[in-house]
Amino acid sequence: MAQKPSIPKGTRDFNPEQVAKRNYIFNTIRGAFETFGFQPIETPSFENSDTLMGKYGDEGDRLIFKILNSGDYLNKANTDAYEEKDSNKLTPSISEKALRYDLTVPFARYVVQHQNDIEFPFKRYQIQPVWRADRPQKGRFREFYQCDADVVGSKSLWQEVEFIQLYDTVFSKLQLEGVTIKINNRKILSGIAEVIGASNKLIDFTVALDKLDKIGEDKVKEEMLSKGIAQEGIDKLQPLFSLSGSFDSQIESLKTILSTSNEGLKGIEELAFIDNAITALGLKTATLQLDVTLARGLNYYTGAIFEVAAPKGVKMGSIGGGGRYDDLTGIFGLKDVSGVGISFGLDRIYLVLEELNLFPEAVNKNIEVLFINFGDNEALFSLKAINKLRANGINAELYPDAAKMKKQMMHANKRNIPFVVLVGEEEINSNTYTLKNMVTGTQDKIELEQLIETVKK
Amino acid sequence: MAQKPSIPKGTRDFNPEQVAKRNYIFNTIRGAFETFGFQPIETPSFENSDTLMGKYGDEGDRLIFKILNSGDYLNKANTDAYEEKDSNKLTPSISEKALRYDLTVPFARYVVQHQNDIEFPFKRYQIQPVWRADRPQKGRFREFYQCDADVVGSKSLWQEVEFIQLYDTVFSKLQLEGVTIKINNRKILSGIAEVIGASNKLIDFTVALDKLDKIGEDKVKEEMLSKGIAQEGIDKLQPLFSLSGSFDSQIESLKTILSTSNEGLKGIEELAFIDNAITALGLKTATLQLDVTLARGLNYYTGAIFEVAAPKGVKMGSIGGGGRYDDLTGIFGLKDVSGVGISFGLDRIYLVLEELNLFPEAVNKNIEVLFINFGDNEALFSLKAINKLRANGINAELYPDAAKMKKQMMHANKRNIPFVVLVGEEEINSNTYTLKNMVTGTQDKIELEQLIETVKK
Repeated sequence: MAQKPSIPKGTRDFNPEQVAKRNYIFNTIRGAFETFGFQPIETPSFENSDTLMGKYGDEGDRLIFKILNSGDYLNKANTDAYEEKDSNKLTPSISEKALRYDLTVPFARYVVQHQNDIEFPFKRYQIQPVWRADRPQKGRFREFYQCDADVVGSKSLWQEVEFIQLYDTVFSKLQLEGVTIKINNRKILSGIAEVIGASNKLIDFTVALDKLDKIGEDKVKEEMLSKGIAQEGIDKLQPLFSLSGSFDSQIESLKTILSTSNEGLKGIEELAFIDNAITALGLKTATLQLDVTLARGLNYYTGAIFEVAAPKGVKMGSIGGGGRYDDLTGIFGLKDVSGVGISFGLDRIYLVLEELNLFPEAVNKNIEVLFINFGDNEALFSLKAINKLRANGINAELYPDAAKMKKQMMHANKRNIPFVVLVGEEEINSNTYTLKNMVTGTQDKIELEQLIETVKK
Repeated sequence: MAQKPSIPKGTRDFNPEQVAKRNYIFNTIRGAFETFGFQPIETPSFENSDTLMGKYGDEGDRLIFKILNSGDYLNKANTDAYEEKDSNKLTPSISEKALRYDLTVPFARYVVQHQNDIEFPFKRYQIQPVWRADRPQKGRFREFYQCDADVVGSKSLWQEVEFIQLYDTVFSKLQLEGVTIKINNRKILSGIAEVIGASNKLIDFTVALDKLDKIGEDKVKEEMLSKGIAQEGIDKLQPLFSLSGSFDSQIESLKTILSTSNEGLKGIEELAFIDNAITALGLKTATLQLDVTLARGLNYYTGAIFEVAAPKGVKMGSIGGGGRYDDLTGIFGLKDVSGVGISFGLDRIYLVLEELNLFPEAVNKNIEVLFINFGDNEALFSLKAINKLRANGINAELYPDAAKMKKQMMHANKRNIPFVVLVGEEEINSNTYTLKNMVTGTQDKIELEQLIETVKK
């Protein structure tokens, strides 16, 4: 192979620094998940195709990576499709497995498959990669991690309260202060559609409303009109567009707007419960905000809808989202299992922390001490010391070759190793070590105990 | 979907306990890797097919999972292959990506691709899943993790010494005492082949020799004969079969046997260097053993060959292996980069720890305290306390629904939660908490501070 190798578009290599920073985020999220009582599960990277296909709409089906059957797969190919050279039609006969597209459907499959071994309510978290054959662009990849926490088997609104606290906990731990946790409720969206006489156009209605931030009030109204929602109904929306003020006061306005919709009033009641609880419990650094335009994957959610926005001033899409879905496992034949969950957007959180310079210095678990190699005798003497350093939890290593001292020192420099130890004949004879602080440049001849103490500081 | 969903054969779901146990092993290995100065990288789950194909032999090519191109993939299908309905021939034209088969080839690709950003010698570790379309059987899966540590860019034998110490460190930390680290050297195998006049049959010779443990001396000789190795040569092997005693004494015998082979003597010299260093440094719980029949992926290795056997009495194949390869990156056009590395077999280590009951109890980070839910007022009061517990690092949660007390207590029991807290009107009024120890059955009404202290113990 003459040309330099490369990786598929939309995928990434991660170097040591990037892995360390990503693990810092993963570990923070994982720690909070566990403190809140969530337990980890893992599912296979690929599922049987019929587990995934048809669960994410036509667009989703298209974006699922399919795995070619092994061996002489054409032997079992669909004859009609083969003659017609119809890719879509052929696929199911030559591909039986597909890469995970999200963590929610595999979780639903897991719950149904293992329902007899699960003690409900079941609080699980899952941190694993997913794959999508999407067009790659800035911040959108074909392989990326999802970090999900869900509870299944309880309709209690205390779960929603807990998830808001969980978001607040994670982002506070990451020192990412000032995020906004937006909340809405599917029942409010249904209520509004009902009130304006567009119940049969709920999706068109919410898709348009969801764009308010981006395209503004006039364009939203235009889009609704074009989708066949009556002008009279749209006029009734006016109070919604001017909704503002505190969570409480918005709730009061909504009560008036939705006074004729039972479903809408139920949604308001749920939101008020959650807001009251959060007010009583308090948040560390996040703010809870009612956003009646928030829709996300509407078909999916049946109650609360969450989305997290980065602190003001940071240009970035949502860094988290979630909601309640009353029939998660129905697709696999297990009815009446309500679920609610949230997700953290690892890649975007990473970019935000990078932009705001919030990664702690200590994240990169670099080597702390490099022993210069002056030859086999010195190397053996050094390795004995290195063993003691390691037993004391210090990351230490020996330069493998007795290369020129300058080369070895440059190696330490390039890797930003803070301490270098020099052991020559003199040191061996006196059982001492010359420790050089690469930052200050100072150099001391000391005993091993002292060396360990100095580095530990 | 009427039938219960399932997962593809050879793949696995992991429940919370299994994930916790696996993470215990991963974290132990990762911690040792970092103490020894290895840095993490990650590579994409799928690579361009031409990065992987042809690197693992015909058998490997067959076992690589290929990903179907997206969209109307038949549009670009190889016309001849399509007409001939030749699966093998068609594949490259409808599949451009393939799932990672091991971590070594992607690592080689990474080193070549990023050679200008890497400071050599480069010590990297990588813990990621790989996929093989192998026939699933006990202990063999289609998706499994590899844990690899490699150094590239140095021929120093101190690396081999360090890897033996690394194996010893990891297995000692896992309390898995008494493993045997077997070592051999490709140059010794070449030397033996040379001495018995079978240099041109090196692979046949080593494949047969590698079976000594399994099929015994006579069958090995039979197989060699059948492969065309002369009886005269086989006779010369006799001293090898009776090789025994200490590492030192085996080295001495080998010196006699291989006295006419320069390459063989070089191999002996390398082994002696490593053994002397390890003897001087000492091992914690493992034993280093010379095994001249050890071959593993012979085509691959050019120097040291490692394999780790579980403690005596545990029936299990090797739980780790590795070796030196002098031309890792040559396949991608970067010559003369010597590498040496080892791998840990996660699944087998898991089985061994399970069999010997070596998983620490504390591995499963279960919830420690469940608050019983008696209604909304009590729940809110409880959540305030739960926040304080969590801030103190205690995993705590509220039962989400105000279900019957018996049901909630059973939930705590089934999940093995050690403490339950009951908060009713009385407790709220006196600002106290009734803490029930689920193991001893004792119950105390205490204040929050005390509760936190008790649970922390």
